[in-house]
Amino acid sequence: MTATGVQSAIADLRALLGDRLSTSEAVRDHHAHDESWHPPHRPDAVAFPASDAEVAAVVRACAAHRVPVVAYGTGTALEGAGIPERGGVVVDLQHLDRILRVSAADLDATVQARVTRDQLNAHVRDLGLFFPVDPGADASLGGMAATRASGTTAVRYGTMRENVLGLTVVLADGRIVRTSRRARKSAAGYDLTRLFVGSEGTLGIITEVTLRLAGVPEAVAAAVCSFDTLAGAVNTVIQTIQLGVPVARVELLDDVQVDAVNRFSGLAHPVRDTLFLEFHGSATGVREDAELVQQIAAEHGGGSFAWAEGHEARQRLWAARHDVAYANKALRPGCGLWATDVCVPISRLADCILETKRDLQASFLTAPIVGHVGDGNFHLCFLVRRDDPREVAEAERLHERLVARALAMDGTCSGEHGIGTGKMRFLEAEHGEGVDVMRAVKRALDPLGIMNPGKVFHS
Amino acid sequence: MTATGVQSAIADLRALLGDRLSTSEAVRDHHAHDESWHPPHRPDAVAFPASDAEVAAVVRACAAHRVPVVAYGTGTALEGAGIPERGGVVVDLQHLDRILRVSAADLDATVQARVTRDQLNAHVRDLGLFFPVDPGADASLGGMAATRASGTTAVRYGTMRENVLGLTVVLADGRIVRTSRRARKSAAGYDLTRLFVGSEGTLGIITEVTLRLAGVPEAVAAAVCSFDTLAGAVNTVIQTIQLGVPVARVELLDDVQVDAVNRFSGLAHPVRDTLFLEFHGSATGVREDAELVQQIAAEHGGGSFAWAEGHEARQRLWAARHDVAYANKALRPGCGLWATDVCVPISRLADCILETKRDLQASFLTAPIVGHVGDGNFHLCFLVRRDDPREVAEAERLHERLVARALAMDGTCSGEHGIGTGKMRFLEAEHGEGVDVMRAVKRALDPLGIMNPGKVFHS
Repeated sequence: MTATGVQSAIADLRALLGDRLSTSEAVRDHHAHDESWHPPHRPDAVAFPASDAEVAAVVRACAAHRVPVVAYGTGTALEGAGIPERGGVVVDLQHLDRILRVSAADLDATVQARVTRDQLNAHVRDLGLFFPVDPGADASLGGMAATRASGTTAVRYGTMRENVLGLTVVLADGRIVRTSRRARKSAAGYDLTRLFVGSEGTLGIITEVTLRLAGVPEAVAAAVCSFDTLAGAVNTVIQTIQLGVPVARVELLDDVQVDAVNRFSGLAHPVRDTLFLEFHGSATGVREDAELVQQIAAEHGGGSFAWAEGHEARQRLWAARHDVAYANKALRPGCGLWATDVCVPISRLADCILETKRDLQASFLTAPIVGHVGDGNFHLCFLVRRDDPREVAEAERLHERLVARALAMDGTCSGEHGIGTGKMRFLEAEHGEGVDVMRAVKRALDPLGIMNPGKVFHS
Repeated sequence: MTATGVQSAIADLRALLGDRLSTSEAVRDHHAHDESWHPPHRPDAVAFPASDAEVAAVVRACAAHRVPVVAYGTGTALEGAGIPERGGVVVDLQHLDRILRVSAADLDATVQARVTRDQLNAHVRDLGLFFPVDPGADASLGGMAATRASGTTAVRYGTMRENVLGLTVVLADGRIVRTSRRARKSAAGYDLTRLFVGSEGTLGIITEVTLRLAGVPEAVAAAVCSFDTLAGAVNTVIQTIQLGVPVARVELLDDVQVDAVNRFSGLAHPVRDTLFLEFHGSATGVREDAELVQQIAAEHGGGSFAWAEGHEARQRLWAARHDVAYANKALRPGCGLWATDVCVPISRLADCILETKRDLQASFLTAPIVGHVGDGNFHLCFLVRRDDPREVAEAERLHERLVARALAMDGTCSGEHGIGTGKMRFLEAEHGEGVDVMRAVKRALDPLGIMNPGKVFHS
């Protein structure tokens, strides 16, 4: 990218979009960061296209001048995927916010990329439906697809990998492609949908998403259970999964995390390693599942279940869970929050979490553990003073050890946050020559290297 | 490919494999066809490598001489994907038949590509586990992955898309790549696993498959229910799916198909449009689900459920279902069987099947309808005399209409059989410019065009 190239692209885009192209300091600053630990970088301009065709025109203009293009949804990425590292044009999809169709008969919906999961859920509630994937943040569904997001309910309902039926994508040359028909399964050609899900904007910009919806279950019950030991909590989860109990949510919060949540959300959970659970099904099914998990918990030093009775109590419980980032920030005001996640086969989860906890106990840094443990996935949230090199170095050391531990257990360096820039250095360790395959695909679909360059791997 | 090239490749392969390289007429004939309607074509040679490294060496030798490479598992492909259309070397994976690991704790297993689903199921039965994907044929698991196969249980357990956790693949240049770690989910880079699942050998040869296993359910119940009308049977299925009843199997056989099955398997089901059903779960869950579906069926002109009591009766029921191909062949001895499948959104299933049935009733050809209707997927099996151009033309006409109908309903030209050569002409109609994306990926990963050339799309 040359300075002239950028200025030419900006001129083209202004002709195309008028005042929906901004180069103001404030707008560029707003689009310089995501919610990750990684340093911000300003784009040269921000475009606000209002249709797929306009997104395509923006991409074509950027391609003509070899200018980077980075898509922007809600800015809630956690590994730097949303940061325009190399400047260029951020494409803010805020005008692509319409729910295009909902089919109660097919349990699916098509939305524009900037529709958020709360927006979709509010829209389909009266039909007795919901969209199950719940990463916490009220992220855009396009962004969730691009990140292959998951969250608290993936143990039961799957991740975006399983819940995206099809996408509309603007390719690096401005062509608009629909990746799939609406049939629930297909053996017709390569799986383009799954190719773009999780590609973090490096292969194209997702403009529409067709999603599976689920029926609101007849019965829902949520409970909290504290344990004598972290091992007991984790082993309860492992046994629950191994027995095939279809829990809808099973979240681990270690004692440090529970303390933070209590303080922030005004709750009074015992400050111990704790599971937050939810069961979905028929009234009988929920009762059966809950009884079985209570038995398992009791055998592993778990206390009795504290039930969150009624819709509101459940909402409060999960709001507290989803507010862990704020709770953690409040634990050490002035600190940066460095959130990371790994995922391992369930049989290795206890080893992985317990070794990680020992690392943390031996360290001077604070990092609550919280996780979607039914998937084998958990998070560390390092609380780090950015201006203290000793703290940053210690977080880096613990982070390296965490990822190496997960990889040694045949796990992945990211269960759900993605690679962005933050995990790039681990991708070769995880995938070996597989990264060359990714690179070949990237070069084939984005030969100019303009789509979110500098992310996922060096191309 | 030149004649000299083939001879040079054969010489190299003979040096590599000794008598595990065959050019005998009989062996070449045996590898000239799959189970599809499509005309056979002999390979120039058949290689029998015994390890991933040998598969890689075979591919490298073929690449050096620009010779096509076609993988062979059990030869049960249904759209010609297994036919070496352009000659070259067939890689018969019969020596890659070992189950490499099973983890009851992680509910997964890794097998070499030629392990069949029955072989795996026999191996894990004592652990209380099973591999759920059931396409009927005792196909190899590598072949099932390559075809993105599904079958009777996909409505509950998903297809190969959902059940493959990772693959080992020999690429077109002989590199060996593992597509994924064993964690249940990952956001680390492009989804290479799903890229190879369903690629029908055109991007590489699958040599190992890591698969999800399921726990054998506490209770299983299977039943047969006949209906007054085809519409009643299909609408029962639609409502069952829309209500979220987790049926494990729900198979439609139209009256013609039931008649064929009765004759072939010595059964006495009423010759009417019929559902074969199976329920998995806790004893209570199975009872609840079955009662609900019985109610729905009764409202749609369904008779009472005839239960297949006990393991053996269930086995007989599903054996009869799986023998439809033989049953259909026996209906009109001397005929070829042209099996095809489409899949549509469930809301369009009744329209799609009823219009198709009207087409068939107005035709002189016989084609039983059978299908995995819970997925919106069904099959026609045309019984055609190959030497009668009028019959072949009529099958072609009905087939074109079937696919056009499915596509017009936002469905797919193949739910599970794949594209091979048989459905290539429909791929552009289904995916439009998406086919160019597939082509770009193909060229990036197989620049010489040696991997199963002439399949899926013209590259």
